Amino acid sequence: MTDKLEDYPVVVTIPVAWGEMDALGHVNNIVYFRYFETARMRYLERAGLIDIMKQIGIGPILARTCCTYRVPIYYPDTLTVGTRVSTIGNTHFNMDYLIVSERHGAAAEGDCVVVTFDYRAKGKASVPEAVIRAIEGLEGCPPGSKCVVEELDI
Amino acid sequence: MTDKLEDYPVVVTIPVAWGEMDALGHVNNIVYFRYFETARMRYLERAGLIDIMKQIGIGPILARTCCTYRVPIYYPDTLTVGTRVSTIGNTHFNMDYLIVSERHGAAAEGDCVVVTFDYRAKGKASVPEAVIRAIEGLEGCPPGSKCVVEELDI
Amino acid sequence: MTDKLEDYPVVVTIPVAWGEMDALGHVNNIVYFRYFETARMRYLERAGLIDIMKQIGIGPILARTCCTYRVPIYYPDTLTVGTRVSTIGNTHFNMDYLIVSERHGAAAEGDCVVVTFDYRAKGKASVPEAVIRAIEGLEGCPPGSKCVVEELDI
Amino acid sequence: MTDKLEDYPVVVTIPVAWGEMDALGHVNNIVYFRYFETARMRYLERAGLIDIMKQIGIGPILARTCCTYRVPIYYPDTLTVGTRVSTIGNTHFNMDYLIVSERHGAAAEGDCVVVTFDYRAKGKASVPEAVIRAIEGLEGCPPGSKCVVEELDI
Repeated sequence: MTDKLEDYPVVVTIPVAWGEMDALGHVNNIVYFRYFETARMRYLERAGLIDIMKQIGIGPILARTCCTYRVPIYYPDTLTVGTRVSTIGNTHFNMDYLIVSERHGAAAEGDCVVVTFDYRAKGKASVPEAVIRAIEGLEGCPPGSKCVVEELDI
Repeated sequence: MTDKLEDYPVVVTIPVAWGEMDALGHVNNIVYFRYFETARMRYLERAGLIDIMKQIGIGPILARTCCTYRVPIYYPDTLTVGTRVSTIGNTHFNMDYLIVSERHGAAAEGDCVVVTFDYRAKGKASVPEAVIRAIEGLEGCPPGSKCVVEELDI
Repeated sequence: MTDKLEDYPVVVTIPVAWGEMDALGHVNNIVYFRYFETARMRYLERAGLIDIMKQIGIGPILARTCCTYRVPIYYPDTLTVGTRVSTIGNTHFNMDYLIVSERHGAAAEGDCVVVTFDYRAKGKASVPEAVIRAIEGLEGCPPGSKCVVEELDI
Repeated sequence: MTDKLEDYPVVVTIPVAWGEMDALGHVNNIVYFRYFETARMRYLERAGLIDIMKQIGIGPILARTCCTYRVPIYYPDTLTVGTRVSTIGNTHFNMDYLIVSERHGAAAEGDCVVVTFDYRAKGKASVPEAVIRAIEGLEGCPPGSKCVVEELDI
């Protein structure tokens, strides 16, 4: 994990809503996963997986996600959320997230496992080649370099 | 509007979640509409409109909703939310809500306009006869009594 | 109510989050009240009421709110939410909202009643003079013109 | 992790709300953390940590949390959420969660790290002895048995 947003190829900007704070007076813990989701959707669009889901029925399923909270977030603030793919498996890939607060700097980090699922065949599917190529493009990998490490599915 | 839950034929029980409170330390104003929605869905199921939507594509659209807040709601508490149909129009009906807190009594009331929409023909549809009969049954109207007042659509 | 955002002195821009859509595939009805809340907080800050609440304990309480839904909102989209004060009473004021979608134009409108409450004396309080002046300034009223109509509290 | 709710000393029952489903037609991934939060608050109350926070200002901070999704959850359903403490450190403890759907069985599991924080001294605090005793009581540990494994803080 790194604290520099320039290491994350897809970045979204999200204003904190007052109503996202809970009775402790800071942004509620579950809202961070909404921020992650917003960044993840943008990445998946850019990796072409949303189009592929519409075309051939192979799409993403969130299998696991985590968040580590560093400092509280308060309204008003503007967040920059970076996301990237760290590893690609046969039928899944891993993503990292970083949330940077305009007021307080790095505020939280997270990660997730996205499984590629064939909604028609009702089973796990290989990560489509076009998606792997798009991820490598987003991550700035020289062709054939495998700068996104592949790993076996467990 | 009445404060007696026995005037509402469909009633749901909802525990208040700690995380529904906002930075003012009480349940956030938008959550009341989630409570209303939960009660509305139960009523629409019992009125047969959800089945009809699946069968012939005529279903509900929320056109307008309001909430009047009387006293704040806090965690922990258990809410009883009553709902009923007050009037039936040609292509819509009106619903009332009452939220009663176990700890503090009547806490909020609301209402809404539900339009019956033909998702295939892409336009407003008459409230299906079977739904009118089911609503009259739920509201305890003697057959033919029109105890649910009809009104013209505006 | 008017559809022109230039009639609303305080305007906020809000990106639609994918996760704000519900099982019907459009933004859930309760989320509109979150959008309204975001706009209302910005207005109340600019009218000085948030500072006054911190200083002398007189602050806003949402007493009632409504939303009229015109067209569905979908992700991705960016919303512009305008808000203004329509009338000022002795111990409350009324606000209007307009939500304009970048993709679909005017999507919803709403209104609310905000009561000014003395959190120390535990009762309704007069709308502070400084807040009335600030509202008149925001609404572009010539001094002494009462372009924001006053009304008696019910 | 175990799939048997009888291994979790604190259990809460939560009805699924229709509005918790997202555009994919199942309960949105962030809502699972709301369910976890509801169970955690109940456990922390029973462990006495909420009272201690009010009395001496030592309270819980969520430092990290994860969720593993097994099968989707749909409305209508009723969830039973179990929680327990797995390990106690010097200034934190770990909790496990299990969500069991009435309709589909074990649906998700999770865990978290709760740090005990001295809100007055503004720093990490030892887990209060009374809380350790209460946790041991909840977890059914024979006195002095250390059935809840202690671990060093990292």
